[in-house]
Amino acid sequence: MAEVEESALAALREEVAEAVRNVRAENPMAGSITNTVTIDFVANAQLAVGGSAAMVYLPDEGAFLAQAGGAVYMNMGTLLPVYEQTVPTTARAARELGKPWVLDPVGIGIGELRTRLLTQMKADALKPSIVRGNASEIIALAGLWGLLGTADEMGRVRGVDTTDPVAAAREAAVAVARHIGGAVAVSGEEDLITDGTLVAYSAGGSTLMNKVTGFGCSLGGVMAVYATQARPFVAALAGAAHYNAAGVRAAQAAAAPGSFKVAFLDELYKLDAQDVANNPLRVEEV
Amino acid sequence: MAEVEESALAALREEVAEAVRNVRAENPMAGSITNTVTIDFVANAQLAVGGSAAMVYLPDEGAFLAQAGGAVYMNMGTLLPVYEQTVPTTARAARELGKPWVLDPVGIGIGELRTRLLTQMKADALKPSIVRGNASEIIALAGLWGLLGTADEMGRVRGVDTTDPVAAAREAAVAVARHIGGAVAVSGEEDLITDGTLVAYSAGGSTLMNKVTGFGCSLGGVMAVYATQARPFVAALAGAAHYNAAGVRAAQAAAAPGSFKVAFLDELYKLDAQDVANNPLRVEEV
Amino acid sequence: MAEVEESALAALREEVAEAVRNVRAENPMAGSITNTVTIDFVANAQLAVGGSAAMVYLPDEGAFLAQAGGAVYMNMGTLLPVYEQTVPTTARAARELGKPWVLDPVGIGIGELRTRLLTQMKADALKPSIVRGNASEIIALAGLWGLLGTADEMGRVRGVDTTDPVAAAREAAVAVARHIGGAVAVSGEEDLITDGTLVAYSAGGSTLMNKVTGFGCSLGGVMAVYATQARPFVAALAGAAHYNAAGVRAAQAAAAPGSFKVAFLDELYKLDAQDVANNPLRVEEV
Repeated sequence: MAEVEESALAALREEVAEAVRNVRAENPMAGSITNTVTIDFVANAQLAVGGSAAMVYLPDEGAFLAQAGGAVYMNMGTLLPVYEQTVPTTARAARELGKPWVLDPVGIGIGELRTRLLTQMKADALKPSIVRGNASEIIALAGLWGLLGTADEMGRVRGVDTTDPVAAAREAAVAVARHIGGAVAVSGEEDLITDGTLVAYSAGGSTLMNKVTGFGCSLGGVMAVYATQARPFVAALAGAAHYNAAGVRAAQAAAAPGSFKVAFLDELYKLDAQDVANNPLRVEEV
Repeated sequence: MAEVEESALAALREEVAEAVRNVRAENPMAGSITNTVTIDFVANAQLAVGGSAAMVYLPDEGAFLAQAGGAVYMNMGTLLPVYEQTVPTTARAARELGKPWVLDPVGIGIGELRTRLLTQMKADALKPSIVRGNASEIIALAGLWGLLGTADEMGRVRGVDTTDPVAAAREAAVAVARHIGGAVAVSGEEDLITDGTLVAYSAGGSTLMNKVTGFGCSLGGVMAVYATQARPFVAALAGAAHYNAAGVRAAQAAAAPGSFKVAFLDELYKLDAQDVANNPLRVEEV
Repeated sequence: MAEVEESALAALREEVAEAVRNVRAENPMAGSITNTVTIDFVANAQLAVGGSAAMVYLPDEGAFLAQAGGAVYMNMGTLLPVYEQTVPTTARAARELGKPWVLDPVGIGIGELRTRLLTQMKADALKPSIVRGNASEIIALAGLWGLLGTADEMGRVRGVDTTDPVAAAREAAVAVARHIGGAVAVSGEEDLITDGTLVAYSAGGSTLMNKVTGFGCSLGGVMAVYATQARPFVAALAGAAHYNAAGVRAAQAAAAPGSFKVAFLDELYKLDAQDVANNPLRVEEV
């Protein structure tokens, strides 16, 4: 697992900076189908980084967003009955149009509909471009899709929290990234982002991010915004770096969750392309 | 397009001030059927100006709100399947009871259900008392209702953002206001409010209002609160003036979106009737 | 209505302190089925006191939360059609598993589905462990369940706001607490909490809590977190005391609703077990 050369790292940082600059310049729209708990945090984070947001629940509206926007974000929290149609319809539309879409498999293992929707997404016609989750969610998804090959990794049932370390999800993340031909981001104390060939680690953030709901969800929404301007690996890196840098700064401004969330949105907005690109990053080959 | 006389302007300001005072005194309830993205912002804005809030999704509950409250707010964002029944049932109940209701046609042009619901609302039995939207939404609604008479204005499909200037929506706003016999508010750098006879311009606000989701939605909810105490034109003016004045003050207190939203809710609450009535306003005849 | 002895009061305070300490140590999950207006406030309040949150809408997911978490919170605001199955399924699962669940009967009297759901909950197989509401809601629930025996108390239809004083709900609260064999919390200027034998009064808070939506809903969610670690009466007391203490402190930090809500979440997080246990409390025998 050799670290990549300095010039490759610099080139990657420049790609991240360009994604941030382009989002600020273009105000691109990434539509979302996302849970009701954090839906306003997703929208506000997307706006704070320079993107545009639109949220829907109905199948034909999901397909419309795939067409009208540059990318789509779908989060499996708080599923409604209509998602049975909306989620696959939107995924299919995005794929057919060649638009990237970001999956957050939150709650994987809970309930029949979520399992069915996530199982369907393995197919070429539906599969996401980026998957963002915590370690246990990524392991569970790799298991559900049969990418790990060991029976003991399959069929895990997990809630929205996790204690699994990011490192334990490395193999699963690489497997999922290779299957989808895109990128996987594993959120944790240090975030892991992989395209199946390289594995990047983005550091920063704050433990207060565990004391406010929606940092994971809104990060997925921001990755979708970046995916309108960059390839999946760079979009996931840019989102993670932006969040980690803003988390560090917000924790300097606030020491409790209410004011931390407010400060975080402020910092998302205030950081510039160079700040994001300079966030601590190391990259190794798989 | 002559400006109205100073005495007419002063009388209008006094009507606005009275609406603000009455809301503070009466704590009136305006029920809402509104999108899940900004639903808590709508409720908190309604409370901050002195009103009371209640949100529902089901048809008989919408009809109940029309009866129990002084006005209703309906926002077409994040439609759910049950809205097919809830929206017309609630609109009809409000009309039959003579209660004003405020429409936000957000997302007009996206999806079959939204188009069907908005088309139905042209009818006397359902039509709103106030329509609030951005320029492209108001133009699209006038087109959908066939009020513009030119084919090229019809059938436009728009997202939630817009770059259309307010001025371009003047004719459409006047046409919609005349059709509904109420008022239309076009949000923009300067807001345009018309009852079909007069056109008012309310200035103020902040560009940060474009960096936080829900300023438009919550303004619609606040107009509904004011509509419990004032005629549609004055209610729309009071809401726009209250938002513009609070936006200016919040921008003095905060320079980034997270803290700006917090400061804005504080300022909504702290402004008094005279502050709102004194917000920059000019009025001309159609 | 004699006050309890000092030693009994001290013992109760110690139970409250232990509940707070255990939640901080265990990070227990209390799943919710709750309204879309305040759903993120519920989750953030649960996290701020040290718990963990998960929200769902579908029946099998509600049953899963009852199994996976230590308690459940169900709030009757913004009912969706699927609640017809989800609410009784989840209540039944919680009861069968012996998990406590907290009911917030918000909007009681509005609409057919809400009345049907609340009526069903009288049954042993479904009944909640804690009911939290304002005075008029608790009176209405006691009436709906036929616990008051006087026709004039029955069939009341109420909105989400109330002017009924807490004292007027004392008899109804005791009757509901005895029926469910748990606890009832009546929110007001001074909160009343009863297990049917003792009646406790918890003081504090701020009038600004009426100017922000969701203090009642999120308090219910926090009571569910405490119910994972304490008997219903103590869980309800701990939640009320935590809210009252945080409200007092937040009002010292902020004088308007936007910043007050932020400060309140900060204070929820910062208060320790002794702060909560020491909040003004008096207890009398029924």
